[in-house]
Amino acid sequence: MINKNTKIGFIGTGVMGRGMIQNLLKGGYSVYIYNRTKEKALPLIEKGAILKNSIKELCKECGVVITMVGYPSDVEEVYLNEEGILNNIKPKSYVVDMTTSKPSLAKKIYSKAKENDIFSLDAPVSGGDIGAAEGTLSIMVGGDKEAFDALMPIFELMGKNIVLQGTAGSGQHTKMCNQIAIASNIMGVCEALSYAKKSGLDPKTVLKSIGAGGAASWQLSAYAPRILKGDYAPGFYIKHFVKDMKIALEEASEMGLTTPALELSKKLYDKLIADGQEDLGTQALYNLYK
Amino acid sequence: MINKNTKIGFIGTGVMGRGMIQNLLKGGYSVYIYNRTKEKALPLIEKGAILKNSIKELCKECGVVITMVGYPSDVEEVYLNEEGILNNIKPKSYVVDMTTSKPSLAKKIYSKAKENDIFSLDAPVSGGDIGAAEGTLSIMVGGDKEAFDALMPIFELMGKNIVLQGTAGSGQHTKMCNQIAIASNIMGVCEALSYAKKSGLDPKTVLKSIGAGGAASWQLSAYAPRILKGDYAPGFYIKHFVKDMKIALEEASEMGLTTPALELSKKLYDKLIADGQEDLGTQALYNLYK
Repeated sequence: MINKNTKIGFIGTGVMGRGMIQNLLKGGYSVYIYNRTKEKALPLIEKGAILKNSIKELCKECGVVITMVGYPSDVEEVYLNEEGILNNIKPKSYVVDMTTSKPSLAKKIYSKAKENDIFSLDAPVSGGDIGAAEGTLSIMVGGDKEAFDALMPIFELMGKNIVLQGTAGSGQHTKMCNQIAIASNIMGVCEALSYAKKSGLDPKTVLKSIGAGGAASWQLSAYAPRILKGDYAPGFYIKHFVKDMKIALEEASEMGLTTPALELSKKLYDKLIADGQEDLGTQALYNLYK
Repeated sequence: MINKNTKIGFIGTGVMGRGMIQNLLKGGYSVYIYNRTKEKALPLIEKGAILKNSIKELCKECGVVITMVGYPSDVEEVYLNEEGILNNIKPKSYVVDMTTSKPSLAKKIYSKAKENDIFSLDAPVSGGDIGAAEGTLSIMVGGDKEAFDALMPIFELMGKNIVLQGTAGSGQHTKMCNQIAIASNIMGVCEALSYAKKSGLDPKTVLKSIGAGGAASWQLSAYAPRILKGDYAPGFYIKHFVKDMKIALEEASEMGLTTPALELSKKLYDKLIADGQEDLGTQALYNLYK
């Protein structure tokens, strides 16, 4: 059972994990952390987190283990390796992968966890670094309702919009829907802004007009001002976005679904990666239009 | 000078014009109307509008003439013909084209108007039939500040977000930015929904998750529920959207700007037109993904 004394393990202390961990600490939980690059975890010790030297050690302490790592290959390693979570966590514990990862991998982890009497959810998020810091993430969950209900008090410290989407993998599928919509929206933002500049308009004044009507979007209001300042710092890394689009395209292809706008977006972002811009934020797509 | 006794002429009583005219009448103005297809104007007589049999007759009465017609060719005809506005309106009058039309044509009308001592603005809108009916349109204006200020009380009856974007043609250019953003967003909406369905998710539940985060957009919240109900009734006609995209692509091309997502969107909508779907609403793009 999960209560206020439950110790939470958190693996992955990057730009997202950092904000989420701080909100768990503020909520009064003991949080045990692990990160492959130890240096990135150190600032969280001052905030009250307890650093562990291995996943194995972390798992010994915790009744809930949350993961927020980079790629599906990282998820696979962290969960399924000999030294990974599922081989070292106590029975009746909860594991929650909040990384954006493959739906099929989420199902695999769920099945393996179930064999070991462990409850597993896939729970990717949307809302970026700001949402993570402010505890306003949208959390898309796949798995069993009992586990979802049990973890709700913990989810509520990190997010505002927490929805059970269906069985294992459904959180990941929903996140793909989210990324598919974004993949198109960000192209629209960049093309609209580049048109505005080229036609001699003042893009800031243009935003006053188009930010409120049928063209309004989160992508526009969050990123257009950053683009106009030349601020390409990552709220969301290009390399991670391309990873997500790759998963979405593979899944779509397996389902026999054609998504030409997603394909185009991936193609444009691949150009940026080929140009060494993978560590910029997704708004740097604008660089292709300059 | 414009005051409460100024008679307003309104040419074009389609789905947009109808709502706008009613709001001008509610504001206490005398409104003289003209429409090529007279039948479409008749219901407005009951609301207090005065029907004229020609543009020439309408122009004799009015100190302000507003146009909301279909295509740039209609705008050209209505303004520049022998029997059109600029050859028949009194000096010191105001003309306002609220049709989405070519920036170059707006400049041409402005110059011709100026020669005749007439004040001209281009002022296309965003917000659809609902915005027109409710007086909440976003109005994007190009032209001189004096004319913009003089017309503000009239604009305020029709819209909420009224912005002077620059010299003649700037309203049209801004509207192009708006349509460019929408052209991508609607593809994202359709691809996300089709992925949701194909992957076995409940699309309505998916909208609860993705409608609030980074994928949030006006297009998603307005059209996804209609798509899920199979409601393809036009808030905004495909044929008009394709007209707008065509103008934007021509302008972009003249400026040496490449807009691949806009090109793709136009290409997809062209397929719908080839399939006879031009009178459906823009959300019918989803038909390509079914």
